[in-house]
Amino acid sequence: MKKQGLTAPAGFLASGVQAGIKDLGSKDLGMISCPQGAKAAGVFTTNAVVSAAVEVCRENLACAKCFGVVVNSGVANACTGKKGLSDARSMCREAGKALKADQGAMLVASTGVIGRKLPMDKVRSGIRTCADLLSDSQEAARDFAEAILTTDTVSKQHTETVRISGKEVTIAGAIKGAGMIAPNMATTLCFLTADAAISKRLLQKALREAAGESLNKLTVDGHQSTNDTALLLSSGKAGNAPISRPKSPDYKKFYETLLSVCRNLTRQMALDAEGATKIFKVEVSGAVSKKDARKAARAVADYDLVKCAINGSDPNWGRIICAIGSCGAKVNVDNITCRLGRLTVFRSGRPVKFDKKRAEEIVSQKEHTILIDLGAGSGSDFCWGCDLSKKYVEINADYHT
Amino acid sequence: MKKQGLTAPAGFLASGVQAGIKDLGSKDLGMISCPQGAKAAGVFTTNAVVSAAVEVCRENLACAKCFGVVVNSGVANACTGKKGLSDARSMCREAGKALKADQGAMLVASTGVIGRKLPMDKVRSGIRTCADLLSDSQEAARDFAEAILTTDTVSKQHTETVRISGKEVTIAGAIKGAGMIAPNMATTLCFLTADAAISKRLLQKALREAAGESLNKLTVDGHQSTNDTALLLSSGKAGNAPISRPKSPDYKKFYETLLSVCRNLTRQMALDAEGATKIFKVEVSGAVSKKDARKAARAVADYDLVKCAINGSDPNWGRIICAIGSCGAKVNVDNITCRLGRLTVFRSGRPVKFDKKRAEEIVSQKEHTILIDLGAGSGSDFCWGCDLSKKYVEINADYHT
Repeated sequence: MKKQGLTAPAGFLASGVQAGIKDLGSKDLGMISCPQGAKAAGVFTTNAVVSAAVEVCRENLACAKCFGVVVNSGVANACTGKKGLSDARSMCREAGKALKADQGAMLVASTGVIGRKLPMDKVRSGIRTCADLLSDSQEAARDFAEAILTTDTVSKQHTETVRISGKEVTIAGAIKGAGMIAPNMATTLCFLTADAAISKRLLQKALREAAGESLNKLTVDGHQSTNDTALLLSSGKAGNAPISRPKSPDYKKFYETLLSVCRNLTRQMALDAEGATKIFKVEVSGAVSKKDARKAARAVADYDLVKCAINGSDPNWGRIICAIGSCGAKVNVDNITCRLGRLTVFRSGRPVKFDKKRAEEIVSQKEHTILIDLGAGSGSDFCWGCDLSKKYVEINADYHT
Repeated sequence: MKKQGLTAPAGFLASGVQAGIKDLGSKDLGMISCPQGAKAAGVFTTNAVVSAAVEVCRENLACAKCFGVVVNSGVANACTGKKGLSDARSMCREAGKALKADQGAMLVASTGVIGRKLPMDKVRSGIRTCADLLSDSQEAARDFAEAILTTDTVSKQHTETVRISGKEVTIAGAIKGAGMIAPNMATTLCFLTADAAISKRLLQKALREAAGESLNKLTVDGHQSTNDTALLLSSGKAGNAPISRPKSPDYKKFYETLLSVCRNLTRQMALDAEGATKIFKVEVSGAVSKKDARKAARAVADYDLVKCAINGSDPNWGRIICAIGSCGAKVNVDNITCRLGRLTVFRSGRPVKFDKKRAEEIVSQKEHTILIDLGAGSGSDFCWGCDLSKKYVEINADYHT
């Protein structure tokens, strides 16, 4: 079996250590290094309140070549004012010093409790240890994937390869945590490495679009946190003919592979969401526009009553129709048809007699699809959601700040 | 003590009976009659999918004088196609026949399970019984208030009086159910009676604005159902000088009293919401516009993580700030200040050291206020929410369609 994880693409080293930022005694500081530099792309939360790391990352992404990423878990460094911003810059400076790179060529991410300051002594010494431990081994990639976790129950990685202009290109990713988490966590971080030769502009385009069709299609509790970040670094070491045109078959191959990696990671994240026991996909077709289809899909996936029904394996189409009606999309109930998997439960505005037992079996599955045809146009889109369980409320109500 | 309930204003009779629409064996059909006619106003759900009763009510509100309202609980008559529409019209016809009024002068409302058809034989015979039992007694008003309930645990009424041009004007209301309810219920109905002499145009204006500042300020699970309806009838029997100008002190008095009745009913409804143990008010000031303030207040009140935290009596300001950041309003975190009651927990973008015990006491209360100053302008607005409990998930997950 081939090497898995962020060190699988050529040109990357990784490490993860326990720096003492978390009280729990697990790994909490990770580093990715690309000694010969890599092109970098990033997408961030749309929340108007962002962490210090997100601010610094946005600035530093302008660099022509990135030489490394430093990430801490346990403290989100969000809502921490000017001190927080200077701490995020210090992380870049310290990592740059250890990797003999300019601090402006370093990227940084944080995840954890909002409003708490970073213990900078521990962070600095952790960064130095991380730099010492950098390795291109599979174990090093796993250490990094573990260091970024907060209340996730498992580390989540995925790796794929694709042939581009006769060369094998590898894309790998590690992801953490869906669901804003008690006491007040700031959540999704996704790191991707690749060894394709590709222009910076196309790398950014590929990441933006792939995240749009994967990470941004999942809703756990309907909101983006202050820290959500996805970064993609590509070293160019695969030796493929550089990808520079968005319409080229090579770009398409790169994009499709990246998308597949992102979707796999998104699915892993959904199944590890707080209290989630199931995931479901909402596919909307027949909308007036893609935007309307997105609204409708998202409304169903976000609707607490649908999420509760799925938790209880109840094929409750009434709540689905109600969510659609209130989503703001242009709909005429007389044209709406709804299926659970292959089973039609509502057709042209009227309930259909269906096999309740079969419907319950469908909704009982670990994964199922809700298909909605709005019968109003040709716009379509989809969204993933997960169920709402008593465990979610327990995690988020019983834990105190 | 004065008479309470919908029969308190002069000119109204009411009744409520068990017609056998619900399986549960409780009252499920109610009637209001105004033998000399009343001016009528109505506001309805913004859901694009509406019940048959909502469609018929919208048509019939055009009548100059309304002579009665008929309401059933147990079956929402929503998503029932053409048959549903003809059933809603039949309810008006049957009620009109019993009250010797035109069917176009009758209003109708339904609440209950979506997608189920009305048992019209039972409904028709129930309507005749209701007409026979009409009375202006307080008990008759209570019977009506009970007949409109679904999974509400208590009936909810409120009555107030105000002197207008030397005459005593009475405004009363009855309300049912907040929270879309298992298996797939369509929820809020509010009926108001008054005896003021007032123009139809101002009656509609007063109801629209009062509902906007009361019913529409409460969010239980963030969505409007297919059946939400508020109706206001005014008989003119108080003998006051007719209210015809929106700027007049008389209109203001009428409006303020109506608003007070609506707010009281809204509060009762919130405290009887599914699984709710507490209600909270989110007051936003310093927004760029009133619209932005509304968005922010609503985002906080709708945010599952805030609702869970309040359920657990956790003063979790991080989730409040995060909800504000993602609401789409124009915000700069460095200008945001947040208080729980009188206790400042976040000032100008930074957490403040506060007395945790005091904060927990505030959030433990049956009702508390979250105050947010966005520091960006002079727009302000508010919203009420209720907590999210394991009971809510239980009610909505464990009950099967």
